[in-house]
Amino acid sequence: MGAAKKIINIGMLGCGIVGTQVATLLHLNNEELSTRAGAELVLKKIAVRNINTLREGIHSDKLTTDAQSIVDDPDIDLIIEVMGGIEPAGELILRAINNGKSVVTANKALLASDGADLFSAAHKAGVDLYYEAAVAGAIPIIRPMRESLVGDQITRVMGIVNGTTNYILTKMDEEGRAFADVLKEAQELGYAESDPSADVDGIDAAAKAAILAGLAFHTRVTADDVFTQGISSITQDDVAVAKAMNHVIKLLAIAELTSDDKISVRVHPMLIPRSHPLASVRDAFNAVFVEAKSAGQLMFYGRGAGGAPTASAILGDVVAVARHISRGAVGPRESDYADRDIAPIGEIRTQFLIRLDVADKSGVLAAIAQTFASEGVSIQTVRQSGRGNEAELIVVTHSATEAALTSTVSALEKMDFVVNVDSVIRVEAGA
Amino acid sequence: MGAAKKIINIGMLGCGIVGTQVATLLHLNNEELSTRAGAELVLKKIAVRNINTLREGIHSDKLTTDAQSIVDDPDIDLIIEVMGGIEPAGELILRAINNGKSVVTANKALLASDGADLFSAAHKAGVDLYYEAAVAGAIPIIRPMRESLVGDQITRVMGIVNGTTNYILTKMDEEGRAFADVLKEAQELGYAESDPSADVDGIDAAAKAAILAGLAFHTRVTADDVFTQGISSITQDDVAVAKAMNHVIKLLAIAELTSDDKISVRVHPMLIPRSHPLASVRDAFNAVFVEAKSAGQLMFYGRGAGGAPTASAILGDVVAVARHISRGAVGPRESDYADRDIAPIGEIRTQFLIRLDVADKSGVLAAIAQTFASEGVSIQTVRQSGRGNEAELIVVTHSATEAALTSTVSALEKMDFVVNVDSVIRVEAGA
Repeated sequence: MGAAKKIINIGMLGCGIVGTQVATLLHLNNEELSTRAGAELVLKKIAVRNINTLREGIHSDKLTTDAQSIVDDPDIDLIIEVMGGIEPAGELILRAINNGKSVVTANKALLASDGADLFSAAHKAGVDLYYEAAVAGAIPIIRPMRESLVGDQITRVMGIVNGTTNYILTKMDEEGRAFADVLKEAQELGYAESDPSADVDGIDAAAKAAILAGLAFHTRVTADDVFTQGISSITQDDVAVAKAMNHVIKLLAIAELTSDDKISVRVHPMLIPRSHPLASVRDAFNAVFVEAKSAGQLMFYGRGAGGAPTASAILGDVVAVARHISRGAVGPRESDYADRDIAPIGEIRTQFLIRLDVADKSGVLAAIAQTFASEGVSIQTVRQSGRGNEAELIVVTHSATEAALTSTVSALEKMDFVVNVDSVIRVEAGA
Repeated sequence: MGAAKKIINIGMLGCGIVGTQVATLLHLNNEELSTRAGAELVLKKIAVRNINTLREGIHSDKLTTDAQSIVDDPDIDLIIEVMGGIEPAGELILRAINNGKSVVTANKALLASDGADLFSAAHKAGVDLYYEAAVAGAIPIIRPMRESLVGDQITRVMGIVNGTTNYILTKMDEEGRAFADVLKEAQELGYAESDPSADVDGIDAAAKAAILAGLAFHTRVTADDVFTQGISSITQDDVAVAKAMNHVIKLLAIAELTSDDKISVRVHPMLIPRSHPLASVRDAFNAVFVEAKSAGQLMFYGRGAGGAPTASAILGDVVAVARHISRGAVGPRESDYADRDIAPIGEIRTQFLIRLDVADKSGVLAAIAQTFASEGVSIQTVRQSGRGNEAELIVVTHSATEAALTSTVSALEKMDFVVNVDSVIRVEAGA
């Protein structure tokens, strides 16, 4: 622990939409934030790629293109990293930590990849590495999981942690539109990137799932441990079938304890009942639903992205870290004592919805039911509807392993009268 | 800051439903909780009123009727207070603090009455006074407001923070039953006390409103500052009218910043639109809805009462405080630099629903509209329905002050053809 300080100099790496908000709010609310921190907060330097970009309200003499000079500046106590990406952000943060500076970051990709090394470096250096903004934007979720729930046993976390995909799925559900059509609109509105794969393929959500899983189960999880499936294969028919069943399709980041004390961490679309608290999380909102042994069900809801909401989370961390620095202390850190195994996806049990096109003749349903039975997958409901010479079968299974389901689908695909297996989507039984 | 410790001795004051859960979980999960705390957690002594009450799983040699001996025991590092009530709890906590012990409490009534003194004593003694369980049970709300949102400006907090009244209002809404009938059922089920006034008159919610308001606005608020109205006057007709308007009636604890930088803290029933996130909080669940300038809208949802959920919040605080003690440190505390005035209730602006019985003859509506107009209260909608010789008028106003509304109601009551003003309920315009 260092000496107490009355002025805390801050260096910021990056100044895009979030960084600009952080700088503006730190300026506008400086007196109030400094009072809360117990020390004067001074934004001394900002590293940017292009010094000539116009940034309203930010003095150009604070700007530099030399990020390394900021993390090496002995006058700077606290680094805010909002440049994103794995390198050079990781290298700069590590260097800042080794130089004795506390760090506040919003960088989920970096933490989900190199978190273990960075946290252990921070612990060794006696500095804080805080990251409330990395998961679910403005929603306080890191601190509640790291601290408030530390006296409980979390059994499952299910989050809607990507605003873009939730916006797309909401529009598909409420307006009956196709995935490609809504994606195009989201891109025009600036809700989705021109290359949307980080969002729609679940990559962004997977990084957040890794961070949430580590916190929930006191262990280290990386993005590579996360089974990841996006939403691009979800069709209007899938959404309509979900609706008819009084369910809604959401892209969920799930971290759960399995019955054999492993953990399962995954991102995939899932049918959830309309009565589930997550079902009413619409548009670009995020929410994290947590189940714990004593606490029961909890949900944290709010804006998951955007300049101001993300800046709110970053500035909360800045004040918290500054309080520690001003007292010469260091804050609580997440524990990672539990060296838990990741359960292979094949072992994971859920219910499944399978939609398939079959020839409309007698004996087909019996044969298909027999295929499920011989793979050990028990059927909960079947709905059949005619389509000329073909019929659509909608099967909902009881809880089954992914492995059993995969082999059932292979067997179905080989059957003569199965025209096509249209979709397989997991189903959450209920809250 | 004291020296670091490897064993942390805990004393508990009280051992009712919550205390028994805390003791049981601390025993069952001792290894895991101790690992997380960084020190062995030992529950050394428990003060009870009657030493002979059977308490399953708790060794009788831990029990004493002498609470003072616990707060004076030099071996005890941390006190858990779950006896409730203002005295002797307050006196014992203060003595423990002055003896250098950190305290974890669930005592909302005490904090809403004597919080300022206790926090300042804790600050002076360099110990923690943590109270996550005091508001909304298992829901992490204290720590998010004290720490996660400390970089933002909270503008309003609206909470469903009393499970008993939310259970009653949910049944009235969903089953069309009368208040007295549902209250009786809730008493039989053990959801409501035999003397239900602390719940149904809003007293419990008012203590929580005071605590939330203090945290949200960095100031000190006591229960005496809270305008409090309960739900016992809410009728089946009120609920039916709300339903017809696509609203639901909830008992809300509200803390908000007024336009002239005062704060308003109040507890009263309110009509909220069904689309509001708080509307779907059913039965005994609690939720706290927070609006902040940068973060936007946030909601925290979960179980607000019960042995295990409350124990979850207490044990979270115990581990957090033990982490501090084990490192010879002290945790972040709430700031109270802002000496804010409480706005008198008369100044507060909301929309109102007024139901009144009037004589059914021509000119009545015009005269009533004139009365609203001359008091400066603007009408948004009126619905009239015949009832034999009488008619029911349902008026929803635009935003008006409580003072203007009160004087409008007085004027209405004096009018010849106004048979009765049946009810006046505030209306939340929307999220």
